[in-house]
Amino acid sequence: MVRFGLLGAGRIGKVHAKAVTGDADAKLVAVADAMAPAAKAIADQYGCEVRSIDAICAAADIDAVVICTPTDTHADLIEQFVKAGKAVFCEKPIDLSLARVKTCLEVVRKHKGTLMVGFNRRFDPHFKAAQAEIAKGTIGDVEMVTITSRDPGAPPVEYIKRSGGIFRDMTIHDFDMARFLLGEEITEVSAMAAVLVDPAIGKAGDFDSVQVMLKTASGKQAMISNSRRATYGYDQRIEVHGSKGSVAAENQRPVSIEVANANGYTRPPLHDFFMTRYTEAYAAEIATFIAALGGKGKAAPTGEDGLIALALADAAVKSVAEGRVVKLTEVMG
Amino acid sequence: MVRFGLLGAGRIGKVHAKAVTGDADAKLVAVADAMAPAAKAIADQYGCEVRSIDAICAAADIDAVVICTPTDTHADLIEQFVKAGKAVFCEKPIDLSLARVKTCLEVVRKHKGTLMVGFNRRFDPHFKAAQAEIAKGTIGDVEMVTITSRDPGAPPVEYIKRSGGIFRDMTIHDFDMARFLLGEEITEVSAMAAVLVDPAIGKAGDFDSVQVMLKTASGKQAMISNSRRATYGYDQRIEVHGSKGSVAAENQRPVSIEVANANGYTRPPLHDFFMTRYTEAYAAEIATFIAALGGKGKAAPTGEDGLIALALADAAVKSVAEGRVVKLTEVMG
Amino acid sequence: MVRFGLLGAGRIGKVHAKAVTGDADAKLVAVADAMAPAAKAIADQYGCEVRSIDAICAAADIDAVVICTPTDTHADLIEQFVKAGKAVFCEKPIDLSLARVKTCLEVVRKHKGTLMVGFNRRFDPHFKAAQAEIAKGTIGDVEMVTITSRDPGAPPVEYIKRSGGIFRDMTIHDFDMARFLLGEEITEVSAMAAVLVDPAIGKAGDFDSVQVMLKTASGKQAMISNSRRATYGYDQRIEVHGSKGSVAAENQRPVSIEVANANGYTRPPLHDFFMTRYTEAYAAEIATFIAALGGKGKAAPTGEDGLIALALADAAVKSVAEGRVVKLTEVMG
Amino acid sequence: MVRFGLLGAGRIGKVHAKAVTGDADAKLVAVADAMAPAAKAIADQYGCEVRSIDAICAAADIDAVVICTPTDTHADLIEQFVKAGKAVFCEKPIDLSLARVKTCLEVVRKHKGTLMVGFNRRFDPHFKAAQAEIAKGTIGDVEMVTITSRDPGAPPVEYIKRSGGIFRDMTIHDFDMARFLLGEEITEVSAMAAVLVDPAIGKAGDFDSVQVMLKTASGKQAMISNSRRATYGYDQRIEVHGSKGSVAAENQRPVSIEVANANGYTRPPLHDFFMTRYTEAYAAEIATFIAALGGKGKAAPTGEDGLIALALADAAVKSVAEGRVVKLTEVMG
Repeated sequence: MVRFGLLGAGRIGKVHAKAVTGDADAKLVAVADAMAPAAKAIADQYGCEVRSIDAICAAADIDAVVICTPTDTHADLIEQFVKAGKAVFCEKPIDLSLARVKTCLEVVRKHKGTLMVGFNRRFDPHFKAAQAEIAKGTIGDVEMVTITSRDPGAPPVEYIKRSGGIFRDMTIHDFDMARFLLGEEITEVSAMAAVLVDPAIGKAGDFDSVQVMLKTASGKQAMISNSRRATYGYDQRIEVHGSKGSVAAENQRPVSIEVANANGYTRPPLHDFFMTRYTEAYAAEIATFIAALGGKGKAAPTGEDGLIALALADAAVKSVAEGRVVKLTEVMG
Repeated sequence: MVRFGLLGAGRIGKVHAKAVTGDADAKLVAVADAMAPAAKAIADQYGCEVRSIDAICAAADIDAVVICTPTDTHADLIEQFVKAGKAVFCEKPIDLSLARVKTCLEVVRKHKGTLMVGFNRRFDPHFKAAQAEIAKGTIGDVEMVTITSRDPGAPPVEYIKRSGGIFRDMTIHDFDMARFLLGEEITEVSAMAAVLVDPAIGKAGDFDSVQVMLKTASGKQAMISNSRRATYGYDQRIEVHGSKGSVAAENQRPVSIEVANANGYTRPPLHDFFMTRYTEAYAAEIATFIAALGGKGKAAPTGEDGLIALALADAAVKSVAEGRVVKLTEVMG
Repeated sequence: MVRFGLLGAGRIGKVHAKAVTGDADAKLVAVADAMAPAAKAIADQYGCEVRSIDAICAAADIDAVVICTPTDTHADLIEQFVKAGKAVFCEKPIDLSLARVKTCLEVVRKHKGTLMVGFNRRFDPHFKAAQAEIAKGTIGDVEMVTITSRDPGAPPVEYIKRSGGIFRDMTIHDFDMARFLLGEEITEVSAMAAVLVDPAIGKAGDFDSVQVMLKTASGKQAMISNSRRATYGYDQRIEVHGSKGSVAAENQRPVSIEVANANGYTRPPLHDFFMTRYTEAYAAEIATFIAALGGKGKAAPTGEDGLIALALADAAVKSVAEGRVVKLTEVMG
Repeated sequence: MVRFGLLGAGRIGKVHAKAVTGDADAKLVAVADAMAPAAKAIADQYGCEVRSIDAICAAADIDAVVICTPTDTHADLIEQFVKAGKAVFCEKPIDLSLARVKTCLEVVRKHKGTLMVGFNRRFDPHFKAAQAEIAKGTIGDVEMVTITSRDPGAPPVEYIKRSGGIFRDMTIHDFDMARFLLGEEITEVSAMAAVLVDPAIGKAGDFDSVQVMLKTASGKQAMISNSRRATYGYDQRIEVHGSKGSVAAENQRPVSIEVANANGYTRPPLHDFFMTRYTEAYAAEIATFIAALGGKGKAAPTGEDGLIALALADAAVKSVAEGRVVKLTEVMG
């Protein structure tokens, strides 16, 4: 039985609270949030206590924490809890600064801490099944990966300003997915970017429509296409072409009906929100973390995975700025 | 807050226990089962009490019950609990005898009881969405309904002997679905039946492969195709053709990937079990019952819906025996 | 080189003229039509002669004829040309009267004539590929066939009056398809029928919406659903469920694009005309006839196939009239 | 009536001979080929004459030519026939040297010649329908194009050595398709390339697996993924994401059946040959050329389109060599 503290009682905190309490091998003991009513709501619903972060860190009845606080607190909290001997599941990203992530992971290593990072898409049943086919050898050697990732709509510009930019905020999921599917480290990054959706995003110094090419040392390749707008819903697809075949995971929609009439055959739009699209993935990543703490499987993706995804984002930023292919070693230092 | 007693702690009882405890407007107070360990397991998991059926019936802290006991106890329990003023959700069928169902419903009416019957498929999000399109007028007047319903494999012959036969055990769901989609009462039934899957089923006096045609007074028609075997999984589809168009709800599979190679493009088999196929439907029917008790919407399908579906099954049995179209009035009396 | 005469230069005559002239092993020598301009148009386009029917029958430079004249001339022409030693390809039906078909086939047998009947759907590449999978044993024993066949719109009522009714005019294709897929003779027929599309069709003594169940001696079953109206195009599908799996041939559309927007994902309507839907099938059936005359394969479907399909239609008419299952032996005599 | 000479009686020459003779507004008068038997075969089949290239050029009974000779003769023949006042349809590419293409087009312009280049994919009914939706405004402003193009297998290395390399031989079709779909000139090219299929291709100085990103002045983007191997057939897809929606044209297969069994649901592989995949496109491009000569529509894609596609290929080659984004102006001079 893994005893949990939850740090952060916002939107994603609620998702993780549900996942923890729904797992027979875990128990939610305490929740902390700067906003008292948010913490209380979770405590009431699941019958756990409200505590301060420091109290949770010091508690003998807490084995692990889920960090869902604002991004700029992640690295500090990881260090604090790892030092206290707690296992840590942290929402991505660890930090927007590669240097800060490195020092944080140094602390984790030094204390032999357990750190799992929330790249939830690896746990989507469809993407996971596609990766499992690759692992089984169904498609032979992986050669070319195609990742399409488009949001129904752009977040507020205020959010974008603090997000680290589209590559670090949105494409970072696709960088991790590319690594998950390629099965070999990426060495080269080339990106193009434009503002096509909303000029305000451009004024904020960011892009809303980007495409990226990736390459590994042996020549395996991947492409990513991102847009901050898709009228037809949350567009999330992968396709992997290999020497013996191909595997694809298609888009998901809430209901799969089809209406036929004189206009043609119409299926409903896709999910319009990442939390309904990835409901099962959120539950599965927490279950994986819990199982790993119980000795079954690994608590992965790790902090190192978070570091590399961020480095790929930094490389993409540099590639756009300089109009050239950027080697990962250039940004990793 | 609706306070529940659960009668029957078997496979389907567990499903309903989860649905009740997961609903913010309901509370599972007690569970009863002839097998003490089964009842205790549910009590332990959800923090409720184990009581006898009679104790639940007499309890002041119980507003409603979910009946998941063996079929031959349903009618008696419905009568007992309706007389005690409890709202009743009963798994289908109410009874295998049309006469017994009628006397039971008479008691429900006399005591102005609330009785909802578990035709879970009406609550499947896909079928429900198809019906909603019909209700919106998207396809105009309904003209021809096609229902395909095939099980991955046949149940044990011992089960089949007590099941009332394929029309009352399996097709009954499709009869209810046909009524749900046609939106007009069925008046005529014609059926054909054969033993193609397992001769033992034939020896037990039943069929394993049947097809049925239905017709309403105004000429709307429906077809049902049933088999006790489908190598590709749990085959559950509907299609409705109308004056302005058509709507269909396709099969569901656990993961939607596609592998392409020299053999072609392959998607995985369908769900292989009705409980994973209809997970959302089971939760939604209980939520509907709870909401209705709270004054929102109706507690339907009702006992009357259960009665008519059984009458359609009886008509199908008669049609096969006599090689002719049977009018529903012939069996309804 | 098979030398052809074409009898009838109407819509379907043009289709066959193109098929004959496009086949390297055949030559279109002459065309006959009561309407001189129609015959001349084909003669001009393909460089063949206009002759009278009798001249074609007497000609030494004609080996075979394609009969595309009005239905009520088919049986007489078949007899005339078979007696003259010509091979005959005749559009379906041979006649609307079962008795007349029988006497006609008697003449064909007596003269050891070659008669192929135009059930073009057997030659549709998709339906043919489905049947080929069955023949290969891919789905094991055939158990349940589902055939959906809906026209974009009803023909003129004047046509319907002379058509022999929906079962003999439209369903007859599906009866032949059911036999093609079942691989075993049908022994029982049960049908339901209604007028839902156009009351004028009812006034003309016909139906526009029908459904049929078929059964073979060993219990294999088939269902047919027909409507004279489908807003989404020419709806032509088959599905065969067997002991080891299932095979389906889906609808065809002229272009396969998909548009996604806030309304969902839309593919264009289906073909809206049987001649574009079955373009390849028309060419393939004539190629089969030519090849058979050259000693490769059989000239099938035969007159006997035409007879049985018509008998099934007669049985369906009788079933609707009498509200019961009709044995094929009852109508075959 | 357009009177045609055919230059080259090889594989693609036969395709065009069939298209010309099948068009009611055209007539194939003569064919020339260095291999006499090849020319004779076409002459025999379609009843035209065998002549020398010079005789065709000098002939008064020839209005237009289709050039299907080896690539290194294209530019010279275009110049020869344009000077003789013949309209020219030339298979792509005009030449592998951008400089030579430019001097050739100079001659065309000087003689006010008509030159159409065989980018057949623009005439595929599915791709054309997708582009028509874009032109109608269905998806709003085009933002991101995705083109997937994979061959079933690599051509012989001997062919590859003379092909100009994968970008000029294979991707050139995708460059033209990207321009067709983007509707705005491409200004920047970035490419990655590897040898994953066959080391012999690498030894010949070429690549077999490449990906390309393209960008227009306003920021519209496109991605291309190419491989010389696809076990599942000839993989040819496009997808265009726009401000109001998206449109896609899916892969095509010879027959569209689906088999379901315990392994899942399987559709057959795709077309395995470009000539069956693009049958309709080849006929449609010649029909367009004939119609344009008759005053209906334009004889496009033009020589200029051929020039730009080649320039994009040159830019891709340069991008791979230099690891950077290449501006089209750099190679266009």
